[in-house]
Amino acid sequence: MYHDTSSDEPGTPGFRSLDRLACLRMLHGRVVGRVVYTDRALPSAQPVNYVLDGDEVLFRTASTGKIAAATCGAVVAFQVDDIDPVTRTGWSVLGVGEAYEVVDPRRLAEVAALGLDSWAPLAADHVVCIPLQVLTGRELVRTPAASV
Amino acid sequence: MYHDTSSDEPGTPGFRSLDRLACLRMLHGRVVGRVVYTDRALPSAQPVNYVLDGDEVLFRTASTGKIAAATCGAVVAFQVDDIDPVTRTGWSVLGVGEAYEVVDPRRLAEVAALGLDSWAPLAADHVVCIPLQVLTGRELVRTPAASV
Repeated sequence: MYHDTSSDEPGTPGFRSLDRLACLRMLHGRVVGRVVYTDRALPSAQPVNYVLDGDEVLFRTASTGKIAAATCGAVVAFQVDDIDPVTRTGWSVLGVGEAYEVVDPRRLAEVAALGLDSWAPLAADHVVCIPLQVLTGRELVRTPAASV
Repeated sequence: MYHDTSSDEPGTPGFRSLDRLACLRMLHGRVVGRVVYTDRALPSAQPVNYVLDGDEVLFRTASTGKIAAATCGAVVAFQVDDIDPVTRTGWSVLGVGEAYEVVDPRRLAEVAALGLDSWAPLAADHVVCIPLQVLTGRELVRTPAASV
């Protein structure tokens, strides 16, 4: 996940872009991300547990909740990161797509087979899909400091 | 941080709201959060390292970067969470406020004294302040399952 460095001392920091495949790999390795959306004209973000299926992020939420109301049919973002405060290295990935509720029974059965359950207390009867139409990411790495 | 449970088995999940003081305490204990903003009419979120000073979140960024362009003078959100995928417990906090660039030399000196540096490679010559005008948060806790 992180850039190799031959030095124990932090060196020069640098951003490295992640291509789509690398972004998908990062998303595949995590279980919690943040839905980024607009809530009554204000920016908002809430963590959800999710599964990645191909190019789609899927999560469960309550049909009566504000995430369901704010995301379905809206362009939303999905953000995942992993930053180590000690080494000051890590990565972040941002997907953007037009979210929709999954209602097709066959697709719902597929999603259930992926093991998507909800960690939240409310009846999470709503499966939301965010197709990752735009997917960008970057790593913050440290390269060894140049010798002096 | 987490709710005590007398059972090793996951019980009934529940959300518990965090009051403003609890939210500030959570923010105080972390160093990386996400700036949530609009980038060319699309929702976006990027992790930054930050310091909390009173009711304000402060972070550094490059004046030429898109975070500086998208946040200054804009209403943005700041999101921090800590979710444990094993216990499925954790918390999330969301602040919202109108961000501005800190330009007052005295305030910049105060911010420098707080130890705010940048982990990013670019010249982070821009200090952004997000006053936490709205601050909400919640915990996802597990209460022991009722005996049967």
